[in-house]
Amino acid sequence: VTGTVTHTAALIALDWGTTQARAALLDAQGGVLATRAAPVGVMAVRDGHFAEALAELIGDLLPHSDGARLPLIASGMIGSRQGWREAPYLPCPASIEQAAEQLIRVPTSRGVDLAIVPGLICEGGNGQADVMRGEETQLWGAGLPAGSLCILPGTHSKWAWIGEGERIERFATYMTGELYAVLTRHSILGRLMQLGADEDAAAFAQGVRLGLAEHANATHALFAARTAGLTGRLGGAALADFLSGMLIGIEIGSATRERRPERVTLLGEPALCARYEAALGIAGLSSGRASSNATTRGLWRIACAAGMM
Amino acid sequence: VTGTVTHTAALIALDWGTTQARAALLDAQGGVLATRAAPVGVMAVRDGHFAEALAELIGDLLPHSDGARLPLIASGMIGSRQGWREAPYLPCPASIEQAAEQLIRVPTSRGVDLAIVPGLICEGGNGQADVMRGEETQLWGAGLPAGSLCILPGTHSKWAWIGEGERIERFATYMTGELYAVLTRHSILGRLMQLGADEDAAAFAQGVRLGLAEHANATHALFAARTAGLTGRLGGAALADFLSGMLIGIEIGSATRERRPERVTLLGEPALCARYEAALGIAGLSSGRASSNATTRGLWRIACAAGMM
Repeated sequence: VTGTVTHTAALIALDWGTTQARAALLDAQGGVLATRAAPVGVMAVRDGHFAEALAELIGDLLPHSDGARLPLIASGMIGSRQGWREAPYLPCPASIEQAAEQLIRVPTSRGVDLAIVPGLICEGGNGQADVMRGEETQLWGAGLPAGSLCILPGTHSKWAWIGEGERIERFATYMTGELYAVLTRHSILGRLMQLGADEDAAAFAQGVRLGLAEHANATHALFAARTAGLTGRLGGAALADFLSGMLIGIEIGSATRERRPERVTLLGEPALCARYEAALGIAGLSSGRASSNATTRGLWRIACAAGMM
Repeated sequence: VTGTVTHTAALIALDWGTTQARAALLDAQGGVLATRAAPVGVMAVRDGHFAEALAELIGDLLPHSDGARLPLIASGMIGSRQGWREAPYLPCPASIEQAAEQLIRVPTSRGVDLAIVPGLICEGGNGQADVMRGEETQLWGAGLPAGSLCILPGTHSKWAWIGEGERIERFATYMTGELYAVLTRHSILGRLMQLGADEDAAAFAQGVRLGLAEHANATHALFAARTAGLTGRLGGAALADFLSGMLIGIEIGSATRERRPERVTLLGEPALCARYEAALGIAGLSSGRASSNATTRGLWRIACAAGMM
């Protein structure tokens, strides 16, 4: 008999968001054996048919019936009020172990429960609370050293400060991506814009500089994306990148206004990370990138901490 | 023969904006003899049919043919690129006399030209230019003393600093009204809101305080209008007023961050001025209101300075 390394499936990890859901079949060491994706995000599932959505997503992931009772873990909007079941927020500072203790479990039609990772809540000053769902799992999957500051760019960009033992000490959400979307599509700023043109790096940089300088005057600075067009200083194709740069500059200027970080880690979609890298460079801040499959890794780590395998 | 005071028509003054146009028939002292309004704003006029729109607006204002050759003056979006003819921006600081010298004239079908008041352009720091069209006429109509700071709240709220001889020294636009509109209608912030409810003064005040405190962190603070709903701290009816207060608080905090004004004058629609009055009060700033028919008065003053009567 020759020695054979068999990678036995040990966990199904689900990144279950608003529009998309992704599944990964993992071995006991967290190695990825197979993946699937389906457009069965929380907003696409009608009348609570989450069990059917789960079957659609992972039905053919395991051809053999012996995998039918594998443990299941999920993070993201699936744990929101609009999801399968609400997983109450865990307050910051929050560790992997605390998240593992607070997993909530919902029965599936597979004879095993689905464990859902709680989102996090962070009580800021001024009575403002902040929340995340899914990003906590990404952060724990990225293996960030104590003292890290990690940015997860996106529709609702998150800045997270990491402490000892990968505790998420605090975090703040910036509406950068959504502001860009609603202002280009629905406000007067979009009127003079040509969207979908080639990226204009100079206009983007000009926007970043204005955003950094005027972060304390943001709702005024935004109007520059109108006047730069009206006065012919920027053409329609440049205006969208100017606004994108300005919103990212406002975000960086605001988030670093009290304390300048030494180094920042970016975690997210590569094209968007590249924009943030450029903007951080203009702000004189160095940055690096974390590995891209952080969510799967984070789910595996939480499942380990919860003794699910 | 008994003495009779006859108020002879001397000027037709037009407040010609984006959606609406208003006409006033004035005597030589600026007294209002009659007014008309019509939905013939710049965006409603097709294929450049401005002469027809003018006839619709003022056709029945003068029953007698002897008024047909009265001088005509207009301000607002009618002088924009989308208007009847573009009136190039006058740079700040700008006086009534300078505006009167730079009136542009466009022939009408009435045998007299229409004089159009130029908008203003203000070169800020950081290469950001700002523009106004129509508000300059309102400001000159309000008769503001030197040293005044005047706020014209609205879709694009304007802050104007007034110098000697009613010169408009500089101004800044805040996108407050439009941000409120696009965020409530098109962003995730609107999802939990119930619009059209009774005003919630406590939620508004809470928003103002957060906006004032976090004006240098605005694109983060806005997300509180999501989390306050998610965490059940504010109900759907309160969230819209919370966001309104926050945006006004951000505007006031930003505009006064370098220098605190002693007193502010509000010029605009009464319900909106009341919101700003409340917010300025929370910021510890006193305010008064300017007279409401400022545009008509401003047009008359510019026409006088131009020797049109």
